[in-house]
Amino acid sequence: MPDYDYIRDGDAIYRQSFAIIRAETDLSRFSAEEAEIAVRMVHACGLPEAARDFVFSPDFVEAARTALAGGAPILCDAFMVADGVTRARLAAGNAVICTLRDTETPEIARTIGNTRSAAALDLWGARMEGAVVAIGNAPTALFHLLELLRDGAPKPAAILGMPVGFVGAAESKEALAAQSYGVPFAIVRGRLGGSAITAAAINALARPGL
Amino acid sequence: MPDYDYIRDGDAIYRQSFAIIRAETDLSRFSAEEAEIAVRMVHACGLPEAARDFVFSPDFVEAARTALAGGAPILCDAFMVADGVTRARLAAGNAVICTLRDTETPEIARTIGNTRSAAALDLWGARMEGAVVAIGNAPTALFHLLELLRDGAPKPAAILGMPVGFVGAAESKEALAAQSYGVPFAIVRGRLGGSAITAAAINALARPGL
Repeated sequence: MPDYDYIRDGDAIYRQSFAIIRAETDLSRFSAEEAEIAVRMVHACGLPEAARDFVFSPDFVEAARTALAGGAPILCDAFMVADGVTRARLAAGNAVICTLRDTETPEIARTIGNTRSAAALDLWGARMEGAVVAIGNAPTALFHLLELLRDGAPKPAAILGMPVGFVGAAESKEALAAQSYGVPFAIVRGRLGGSAITAAAINALARPGL
Repeated sequence: MPDYDYIRDGDAIYRQSFAIIRAETDLSRFSAEEAEIAVRMVHACGLPEAARDFVFSPDFVEAARTALAGGAPILCDAFMVADGVTRARLAAGNAVICTLRDTETPEIARTIGNTRSAAALDLWGARMEGAVVAIGNAPTALFHLLELLRDGAPKPAAILGMPVGFVGAAESKEALAAQSYGVPFAIVRGRLGGSAITAAAINALARPGL
């Protein structure tokens, strides 16, 4: 019968993981604080090369950390993003909000002719003001966020634009980087992204230190 | 003001995504049914190269599909996996279960000297019999699943072993492939994996056809 030899201590696993990631990942483009966030994002996807595609606007980390410390809500496009946010790291007890399954969402989607992921953002309303927005799944949600900002919606404190995929993902993230309406942002260029990377970035922002 | 030009129809986005993935991914190793699942897994991670690391035991797809069609519960190591399972695809109304936050879990973790992710599996009990097990986050959960099976736990119908990461992930998946105690399995070799890939595989298994 096999005897399974593995590390059973969660903290030791984290420490060893982060040491491997720092050894294998080119973090030289990043500030110390950005590097900390990048390490957690790499940890979430298992791919040190992904760090090449991480872009943080110069004011992103401070803006997001200040907002989170001040209790800003975290507005997510998907429940997988919301679920990945470790509540114990949210010292200010921030609300983590996802409106994808609100009863009004399907009807809004039909009305605006867009996906439910995009339509869900129309329910954020005034909660967008000063919020941390985490788009980790749907390119249509990120495009629609940009449309809302263009049309004068309340400004979030920071935007994590990290949808994954083959159609619209790269384009939506480039659109955010090209015109973020003055909102600090972080993106993962190209096809990579996803709920795990996005939640990991939020978790890193919520509590400095690995 | 920018005019955002993007596809707003969810079905069209899926169709175009799957066409791109089929064009860019080497699916020649797979049966037609395995290829369908692989396409959805690539869709979830944005990485056609990842398909190189997908391994399905010969009996996996049929075993998992039969179990799901018969209403087998889906036992998940993480809420992100459970949340990624599209309930509308579960024609048999399968229960989707994650015991990570059950009140007993932290105490079990202390008692067995393992992570909470691993300890949560001790609460699955008789529900393991004939279940579809989806491990998409924690290598310790997959290792502990193997320990339970070695020690005579009820046998699931199929195991998706797809934890992500740098410490134990590759090793736990190789251990499953080497000795699955007669249970059909699917893995993603190496560091890649994660909740999105795992949930995508379940979604593909639950309803054939893209």
